[in-house]
Amino acid sequence: MKKILLIASILLIASETIAQQVNTKDSLTIRSIYDMALLNGKSYEWLDHLSNEIGGRLSGSLEAEQAVKYIEAELKKLGLDKVWLQPVMVPKWTRGIPEYAYIETGPGITTTTDICALGGSVPTPASGIKAEVIEVQGIEDLERYGREQIEGKIVFYNRPMQADLINTFEAYGGCVDQRYSGAAEAAKYGAVAVVVRSMNLRQDDYPHTGTMSYGDLPPSQRIPACAISTNGADYLSNTLKILPTLQFYFKQNCKTYPDVQSYNVIGEITGSTYPDTYMLVGGHLDSWDLGDGSHDDGAGCVQSMEVLRLLKEINYTPKHSIRVVLFMNEENGLRGGLKYAEEAKRKGEKHIFALESDAGGFTPRGFSFDIDAANFAQVQSWIPLFEPYQIHSFKQGGSGADIGPLKEDGVVLAGLRPDSQRYFDYHHAANDTFEAVNRRELELGGAAMASLIYLFDTYGSKTDLTKIKD
Amino acid sequence: MKKILLIASILLIASETIAQQVNTKDSLTIRSIYDMALLNGKSYEWLDHLSNEIGGRLSGSLEAEQAVKYIEAELKKLGLDKVWLQPVMVPKWTRGIPEYAYIETGPGITTTTDICALGGSVPTPASGIKAEVIEVQGIEDLERYGREQIEGKIVFYNRPMQADLINTFEAYGGCVDQRYSGAAEAAKYGAVAVVVRSMNLRQDDYPHTGTMSYGDLPPSQRIPACAISTNGADYLSNTLKILPTLQFYFKQNCKTYPDVQSYNVIGEITGSTYPDTYMLVGGHLDSWDLGDGSHDDGAGCVQSMEVLRLLKEINYTPKHSIRVVLFMNEENGLRGGLKYAEEAKRKGEKHIFALESDAGGFTPRGFSFDIDAANFAQVQSWIPLFEPYQIHSFKQGGSGADIGPLKEDGVVLAGLRPDSQRYFDYHHAANDTFEAVNRRELELGGAAMASLIYLFDTYGSKTDLTKIKD
Repeated sequence: MKKILLIASILLIASETIAQQVNTKDSLTIRSIYDMALLNGKSYEWLDHLSNEIGGRLSGSLEAEQAVKYIEAELKKLGLDKVWLQPVMVPKWTRGIPEYAYIETGPGITTTTDICALGGSVPTPASGIKAEVIEVQGIEDLERYGREQIEGKIVFYNRPMQADLINTFEAYGGCVDQRYSGAAEAAKYGAVAVVVRSMNLRQDDYPHTGTMSYGDLPPSQRIPACAISTNGADYLSNTLKILPTLQFYFKQNCKTYPDVQSYNVIGEITGSTYPDTYMLVGGHLDSWDLGDGSHDDGAGCVQSMEVLRLLKEINYTPKHSIRVVLFMNEENGLRGGLKYAEEAKRKGEKHIFALESDAGGFTPRGFSFDIDAANFAQVQSWIPLFEPYQIHSFKQGGSGADIGPLKEDGVVLAGLRPDSQRYFDYHHAANDTFEAVNRRELELGGAAMASLIYLFDTYGSKTDLTKIKD
Repeated sequence: MKKILLIASILLIASETIAQQVNTKDSLTIRSIYDMALLNGKSYEWLDHLSNEIGGRLSGSLEAEQAVKYIEAELKKLGLDKVWLQPVMVPKWTRGIPEYAYIETGPGITTTTDICALGGSVPTPASGIKAEVIEVQGIEDLERYGREQIEGKIVFYNRPMQADLINTFEAYGGCVDQRYSGAAEAAKYGAVAVVVRSMNLRQDDYPHTGTMSYGDLPPSQRIPACAISTNGADYLSNTLKILPTLQFYFKQNCKTYPDVQSYNVIGEITGSTYPDTYMLVGGHLDSWDLGDGSHDDGAGCVQSMEVLRLLKEINYTPKHSIRVVLFMNEENGLRGGLKYAEEAKRKGEKHIFALESDAGGFTPRGFSFDIDAANFAQVQSWIPLFEPYQIHSFKQGGSGADIGPLKEDGVVLAGLRPDSQRYFDYHHAANDTFEAVNRRELELGGAAMASLIYLFDTYGSKTDLTKIKD
């Protein structure tokens, strides 16, 4: 018994010593990554250009094209081993002239209100559309009211985001069906249009756009869909309580064009030991058109570029190939993400890890991992390394839309998780601008991502069995 | 051996079951606190009034007086058991007409730059002051340069906040001696004035004020002190490199008056079991005058008021008396904090716990505790209860300036620790305004504080030995 205890003690001390050594080296590397990011970070400067010199980058727009060229040029300046454009056809939808809406409570008595077309919506007739309004709390209400009460009316989806949820992405997830499928469903009951409460936890005048789909509804049955600001939604709802017969008018002349050519922008540091095994870090280069897409997802793009820059700056030689991918068309089609995965599969490129930043440029709180038990145990063992940087939260969960198509056994997917409280104040709205991004918060995100990439590169993936022996 | 294991197992199961029961009740109570705060919080509305209807509340100002009356009235509306004003004499210092400064690089060649007087500074002569500048990196440089190089000059303290520190309060702590003691020290070497780089991690045009002291320097030797924006500081420093003989001019007509009467505002819910044992929650009602003091410390005031409101709203009957104290004059004197502690001591009021919020209204990340081992072990055991609310960080450290004077054996002091990345962008500057506060982040802080007060009330202080037996 004593002997066993003695051996156990020795083993324990030995393993602790090893752990200590590893941790010291890792701690120092991560510290140098953070120092570089906080003292000489480049994310903010890149974002300034992307946001203020280029602006909103809706797929198929001139700005999206400009962004592709700018990012390609910037990646080339970094001295990566490869930089290239990956062609992808993307949808082209334009907003046209600014939307206009009012609430009519009597002949000639109107109150204007702030709306915007949902992405992918058909336009109203040129003269606009005016009808009575039926307010619902969600798609499930449509059946309850039936065609009798809905036909000829505008359906007003007014279920708010649930404010008592701490993670605002959960609150978004609980509402977004109204925006995405609301028009298609309401059309089946004879509605002439839909107005959707903006996905925003704050009371303000900004309408928030976002993608919607008509599903398999034939073009002739498609009805226009717009978002109304949270203030506008409350005003409309309150006025409906007094005057259920009020009329809502709106006009939008958005248009869908044939698909156009665009690109994912890709840069690579080729791995020194495993050049054919890939780790990916990325965000999406397209954005909505109302603001300049600083948080969604300019931040994720520049943070991802910064990961490769930081690793080069600290003279780290990765064992695996590390790619930064700036995906095109996450917002209204995901064509870039699908194309990348398709090409990777076609070429037999083996990915072991992919990390996306697409949740805003706020203070990073942690990562979410779409991961198996062995790999999750490994990433959890790294938590102490992130403690000094106030990264506390390593959770199992979703990763990012663009990297989702890479999902298969043996690939670890992850997402940066910044503080979420303010995100939906800006998401898809005109106030998603550079001013809403804090330099330090942004740079901390890039540093956290670079640290995680470094650790995966150093310790490998636990499901990449061919390499465990190395 | 088996028997021992069996007993141990039973004990373990029993203790786990107890822990589970306790946790379930606590979890539900904390959930109800958060629900109330996020769905029907009042902090933001109070802060709106304090910031936008009253504004900056420098000690001794009309606005400070108005704030005392407003808060007293609001506390009375809450139906507390007692609400009262605690008289305290406070300093009165006024800024006067806006400051003015320029850098002169040749006869008639001037560039204006943004400055503000430091709180407590003497004015310049009415015609201003103009002199050559000697740039230093800190007080310790004065001795190196000596009277020979300093006499007759303006000392420019330009040591920046250290950007690679993750906790920005540490970076502030590493710089603030320049602001607080810089003038007194430079005067000893014959400097005619000092200009201090603003305590701000961002590059912008806002000068940041803050308190300074002449120590025991006789009035005749006191020299004027101002802060310069970070952009201004860099410009001045860069220009000095080209032209060391440039002249700096500034004018300020701030003034110190005799002390005036003011008040701490106090509200109390009297404890059901221990009416004579107090738990305190508070912030400071005074602010600087440049902005409206929304983050510093309007946020802490309304969050502290909200703690009592939330506990009442969820129908919680505290065992101990809970006081909210809105302290006067934290910024330039700490008279309110000192007075409260003095009176508490005089009356023999036994305090077991005091919690201050004075680090901004940003997303709460945790608490810092000035605490002994027994109590710290207890608060650490509560961490899982805060996990769902993304409060991760329970650290030993400072609490808050106002509650500091209550420190003695057996009193646990604590501070709310919000995310610190943006705080010094606003601290003591004209942009510390209501718009910089996010409603949800603010309300989450009040909920976190109420939860901690609830737990201390429920489980008591581990050093309050008279009650452990209950």
